[in-house]
Order: sequence, then C-alpha cells, then structure tokens
Amino acid sequence: MKTDLGAVKAIVFDTFGTVVDWRSSIASDLSAWGVAQNIHADWAQLADQWRACYGPQKDRVRQGEIPWTNLDDLHYEALCGLLPKLGLSALSEDQRRHINRVWHRLNPWADAVAGLARLKRRYILGPLSNGNVALLVNMAKHAGLPWDVIFSAEHFGHYKPHPQTYLGVCRQLYLNPGEVMLCAAHNYDLRAAGGLGLKTAFIARPSEYGPNQASDLVAEADWDIVAADMQDFARQMGV
Amino acid sequence: MKTDLGAVKAIVFDTFGTVVDWRSSIASDLSAWGVAQNIHADWAQLADQWRACYGPQKDRVRQGEIPWTNLDDLHYEALCGLLPKLGLSALSEDQRRHINRVWHRLNPWADAVAGLARLKRRYILGPLSNGNVALLVNMAKHAGLPWDVIFSAEHFGHYKPHPQTYLGVCRQLYLNPGEVMLCAAHNYDLRAAGGLGLKTAFIARPSEYGPNQASDLVAEADWDIVAADMQDFARQMGV
Repeated sequence: MKTDLGAVKAIVFDTFGTVVDWRSSIASDLSAWGVAQNIHADWAQLADQWRACYGPQKDRVRQGEIPWTNLDDLHYEALCGLLPKLGLSALSEDQRRHINRVWHRLNPWADAVAGLARLKRRYILGPLSNGNVALLVNMAKHAGLPWDVIFSAEHFGHYKPHPQTYLGVCRQLYLNPGEVMLCAAHNYDLRAAGGLGLKTAFIARPSEYGPNQASDLVAEADWDIVAADMQDFARQMGV
Repeated sequence: MKTDLGAVKAIVFDTFGTVVDWRSSIASDLSAWGVAQNIHADWAQLADQWRACYGPQKDRVRQGEIPWTNLDDLHYEALCGLLPKLGLSALSEDQRRHINRVWHRLNPWADAVAGLARLKRRYILGPLSNGNVALLVNMAKHAGLPWDVIFSAEHFGHYKPHPQTYLGVCRQLYLNPGEVMLCAAHNYDLRAAGGLGLKTAFIARPSEYGPNQASDLVAEADWDIVAADMQDFARQMGV
C-alpha cells in the first residue's frame, strides 16, 4: 500500500460492472423468468442494447435536456423503446415492470462480497452509483453487499461523472477528498474522482460487456491501486 | 402481528433514545476521556443540558430563523454555549471537537443489535434520524448497527417531524406509506409518521432521560406495535 493511502477512511464503489455483473445477471434472471412465462427472447441482447441506451440518456439529463430522472425511470423508458425490436411489444405493464426491476436483482462478481467484507473491517463502505436509492438498497439485499451507507446520484441530483457526486460523498461524510477512495472498473470514473483529489482504485472487469469488450481492459493511468479483483484490492489495502 | 402489517417492506428507526442510549454513553465516554485529560466535570449534567438545547435549536431551523444546519454543527454551537456554565471555558478547539464527536460514539441499548439483526432478515432497515449522515454512519460503525441504508434529515433538508422526512423515505424506496414502518421511543414522532399513513411501532425507553424521566413512558395511542424492547419488536413482527 502506498504510504499516502493511510489517510483513507471511506471507500465508495461504482456498482454496475465493478461490484455486480449486470450482463450475465440480466440474461440468466430473464431467461428463467421467460421460460416460466413462455416468453422467448435473446435476453443477453436485451441487456447489451439496454445498457447501450444508458450513456445517451444520462447525457440528456446531464446536459439539461430533460429534468432530473432516476435511473429506474430511464431504464423503463429505454426498455419500452427496445421491446418492439425484440418482438416483445405485447408485454403487459406488469411484465415490463418486472423486467425493469431486474436491475435490482443483479448478482455480485464471485470475489466481491468476500472482498467487501474484508474492507468493511477498517473502512466505511458504500456504493457511489448512478443507480437510484431503491435500486441500490434492493441490490444490496439481493446480493448481500455489506454497505455502511448508500450514496446515489439521486442524493446529489447529478449523474457521475459530475463533480458534485464525488464531492457530495466527501461533504456528507465530513471527510477531505484525500480521505475518500473511489473503486471502479471504468477509467473515466476514476479520472473524474482523481481530478478532484480522491484516491483511486481500478479493478479490471474484462468480461463486463461480454466476450467482445474493447474498453477498460486495463488501467489507463497510474491509479493508487490497480487490483485483479476485490480480494486483491483488500489485500493491497492491508486488510 | 396485525394482519395489515404484512405489507411492510421497510422499517426505519429513530436513533437517539430508541436505538442508542445517548445519556449514559455520553457520560461514560467523556468521564473516561476526562480522567485521561485531567478534566473534571459533571458529564451526565452536560449530556442533559446539551440534549435540552436540541428542541429549541431544531425549532429555529424548522421555523426558518436560521438556514439548514446539520446536527453536528447545532451540537457544536450548543456545546460552546454550555461549557462556561460547567467551568470548562478553557477547552481548546480540538478538545471541543472531540467532545462534539461523542454523538458519533453512542452505544446501543442492550437489546438493539440483536433485535435489528433479526429484523434485517426480512425487512429493509435504516435510521430515520435528525443526525447528519456522517454522525449516523460513524455511530453505526461504532455500535454495530446493521443498517441497509441511512436516512437522515440532512438528505431531506428538514428535521423530523417535518412530513418530507417520512415521505422522503417512502419516495426514495419507491414504497407506499403503508409499506414503511417507523419505530420510535417518542410518541410525537409516531404521531407524525402515522398521520401520513406509515405504520408505527413504539418501544418504551423509560430511562432515556435518566431516573426522573417524565415523558414517553407509555404508548399514548394505539400504535400498530407496542414493544418492550427491540427483541420483543422482532418477535411481534414474526422474525
């Protein structure tokens, strides 16, 4: 552990991709549900196309084109737009709501819960996620994520990488940026946090986007920690 | 358990007095510190006088006399006003800050952690407290409170019993008021929550204010649950 990491008191985590494996979770959850409901579709394709809507939607909020909208509602809007392309126009509202809530039922990467449990012994842990509060709370109950506190874009009225998300964590915890670390599998997120003085930890998740992932395969800067997985992160933090 | 409690999905808790024993915690924490620092005072008296400032301070914020101020800062202001009366004018800023942080180091009532652990198996649990986020997070780490989420007056910019605190919980969890229960040792808090449609649970804490406590000794209305302690509350909720 680099010497200056001794000041870190809280670690906040990107969740989608960093802590939970959204793509395979969505595919497996909806495949099982689809069999029970006799609804057939390429659910992995849905996951990919759905997630692809997220960046442009988030940008519309960030650029003020639409007012603040929680991620659950952005997801629902995108889902309804995608269903016809997947031959699923006939789904009822209840079925659409059930599908939309799959983001509350994501499974952790295999190393995540054990690594977080180790880190929790010494640090305050929370997500810092663009997911809304209900989504993050339900995800934590489902996946067994041992958070001490939930930090959501909903609290700050801004989506990452807006500075007020990272600085909002510091402000609410009464900590200086150098006492807070962001852990993420995405270089853009760490770039924003690091630029504000937060400490940074990168965990590569090379299969987050499936077999053909082309981005975020490696650390693109000299982050404070570069870890193989959450257990390795905990080990490097000395817990 | 009354039949209509089957809809409850989340239970939020008043903390000061309901979950943690602020009076004896402050007295024992500061007594030990005072011995080490060679500072002598009636620390239980400080606790009582300090807590007595809280209602009037909160009212000043609620009535718009002063802008939103976190509880840590209200505590600090009140503390600095009380120290001369206790013969402690000479304390340094560092010593005052240490004393002020005693609210982050409160101990749970003996039944609290075990009762919460039982309730956590079935329900989303969080404080709904006038304490600020940092105070509640640090308190939970200190006392081992197994919260799923932190709800603070700081999130809503209003102190309880403002309706936006109780309704803010419902909104952030995407739950109806009837799906959320407030547990408190104070009838005024339950009255506000119940009036908005939340479910209500009373736990008597007859020694919260010391041996001469005169209020909140009994349930003053037909709350959904009236429990002897947190373990009894868990039992009545069927967990």
